[in-house]
Amino acid sequence: MTALKNDRFLRALLKQPVDVTPVWMMRQAGRYLPEYRASRAKAGDFMSLCMNPEFACEVTMQPLDRYPQLDAAILFSDILTIPDAMGQGLYFETGEGPRFKKVVSTMADIEALPIPDPHKDLGYVMDAVSTIRRELNGRVPLIGFSGSPWTLATYMVEGGSSKDYRKTKTMLYDNPQALHLLLDKLAQSVTSYLNGQIMAGAQAVQIFDSWGGNLSAAAYQEFSLAYMRKIVSGLIREHEGRKVPVILFTKGGGLWLESIADAGADALGLDWTCDIGNARDRVGNKVALQGNMDPTVLYAKPEAIRTEVGRILASYGKGSGHVFNLGHGITPEVDPEHAGAFLRAVHELSAQYHE
Amino acid sequence: MTALKNDRFLRALLKQPVDVTPVWMMRQAGRYLPEYRASRAKAGDFMSLCMNPEFACEVTMQPLDRYPQLDAAILFSDILTIPDAMGQGLYFETGEGPRFKKVVSTMADIEALPIPDPHKDLGYVMDAVSTIRRELNGRVPLIGFSGSPWTLATYMVEGGSSKDYRKTKTMLYDNPQALHLLLDKLAQSVTSYLNGQIMAGAQAVQIFDSWGGNLSAAAYQEFSLAYMRKIVSGLIREHEGRKVPVILFTKGGGLWLESIADAGADALGLDWTCDIGNARDRVGNKVALQGNMDPTVLYAKPEAIRTEVGRILASYGKGSGHVFNLGHGITPEVDPEHAGAFLRAVHELSAQYHE
Repeated sequence: MTALKNDRFLRALLKQPVDVTPVWMMRQAGRYLPEYRASRAKAGDFMSLCMNPEFACEVTMQPLDRYPQLDAAILFSDILTIPDAMGQGLYFETGEGPRFKKVVSTMADIEALPIPDPHKDLGYVMDAVSTIRRELNGRVPLIGFSGSPWTLATYMVEGGSSKDYRKTKTMLYDNPQALHLLLDKLAQSVTSYLNGQIMAGAQAVQIFDSWGGNLSAAAYQEFSLAYMRKIVSGLIREHEGRKVPVILFTKGGGLWLESIADAGADALGLDWTCDIGNARDRVGNKVALQGNMDPTVLYAKPEAIRTEVGRILASYGKGSGHVFNLGHGITPEVDPEHAGAFLRAVHELSAQYHE
Repeated sequence: MTALKNDRFLRALLKQPVDVTPVWMMRQAGRYLPEYRASRAKAGDFMSLCMNPEFACEVTMQPLDRYPQLDAAILFSDILTIPDAMGQGLYFETGEGPRFKKVVSTMADIEALPIPDPHKDLGYVMDAVSTIRRELNGRVPLIGFSGSPWTLATYMVEGGSSKDYRKTKTMLYDNPQALHLLLDKLAQSVTSYLNGQIMAGAQAVQIFDSWGGNLSAAAYQEFSLAYMRKIVSGLIREHEGRKVPVILFTKGGGLWLESIADAGADALGLDWTCDIGNARDRVGNKVALQGNMDPTVLYAKPEAIRTEVGRILASYGKGSGHVFNLGHGITPEVDPEHAGAFLRAVHELSAQYHE
């Protein structure tokens, strides 16, 4: 493997000294980029883009080619590949988001679910990882990812997106054993899926717990965090002679940072409702922090974006352990010039905190 | 005025001893009740229900007649009465939620906005309060309410509901002076509106900051909490020889409880993501707490509802200062029998904490 030319991102996740604060953007390969929209039109639809390693590699590289400031690449894929590989039949309805042909309702449904084999059942993802890694050629590290068990379970039980997770929460309160079995199967699946990505070349992995923040404090511990902890304990943590950092991101999890920091990961993702300096005080030296600008700030003028970047850097303060990011994915309506202004501001304004 | 027969709710808000934990439900007069749906069909639409004091009184009383456990009534109205009285032209599109005919975009738009006079411009709300108060005849206290300035501003700037408050946040970051002027006018309007409700008979008031939890920590302080503090300092706090408690409820505000507790109100509303025992430790003796069961628990079986009520009561622990509620409004699909099981469980299981 080629030597890594820019390892700021990996160093910051391990709290090792860096020259400037590294930065990447959740959903950086996405609809706000005209070149992404062109690739998607060429591929036909979203899942064709995900399932073809050449297309997945093409769109993963697009933001890196446009923005030399990006310190990491992230695998282009969907969080719902695992339920699809379990046989649920993922499809996308225009304007409706992801849907499943089959839904999971009973203990029998859950008992029948297989644990997907990453190479046999999700080979297209493994191929995308190795293709992207080859194409990157040591430019920046590649991040692999998965949805969290709780987040995946909500889609499988609801049959798609949901406003209040009614069916999943009814299962949680009325039939917790069934939900625990589902979450356990998902934790096993996510563990081997992420290990497969690491063996294929992912140099860090992130678990996206998009909907954990909608649980009560008690239910979050039992039905989301416990399974992420289990995954973390089963991951390959060193590969190619280098540590493979793990990032946990629970959107809306700011109230529970202390317990998330205890789950064994190297870093926590923060949404924008947390003050990052306060979060740093709360987690101490246990973990690095990733985040956390409100993605809607990118709608504002470049000067306002720069001010907000400066505010977040100052709140985190001196020293390593911060990977700059948005607090959630970049949205389709953002002007790509504004994203560029954001990325430049992070590097330009952060050098003073690493002297 | 008739003497109050049940003052548990008011006593708990002031941390005075009670026999059992008082309880009410946000949106307790709502679509989950068949009698409400019948009244609404009779009135024609939602705003006709709000604008006719006899109808508003009728639906306010319905949950009290069905559930003898309810310890408070809440004025039936909409949070958007103030922007409507400012001339924005509120209307409801089926399946789309509230909309405004006019939107607020520029400093000139904001400068032109009047401060509504509660008696002249919102007389129908004042009449509803006095009609309900007369009908209650001392049975339980009546809660008045308003939306928070930030929450009202989002609707006025977006022209309706929004997923990411794009226009309002763009104004926040690009043109903060304009947003501050709008929030200041709204704070003045809310203050006189709530004082009008208190003079007409509201015995406690709640400010609903439904969307404050979507702001960054810094923006929340400057653009939401600061204006709620201003309102609280201008409210009539004693009337008819009794304190008029003020409750602040920022959905998603769990990270900021210490600062909300400093805003001068008597109680804080909590959504279900907070552990209420932890919240009590954080706010100390400053304020009472209201909440905080996940409303989706009402989809589960009565035994599961009872378990969850017991867990929350145990987390709060012994002593007064807790008003039980849901962490957000009750949803239309809930079985009214389940709501009854919830209310009974609160009274039955809480006596032991008040011995």
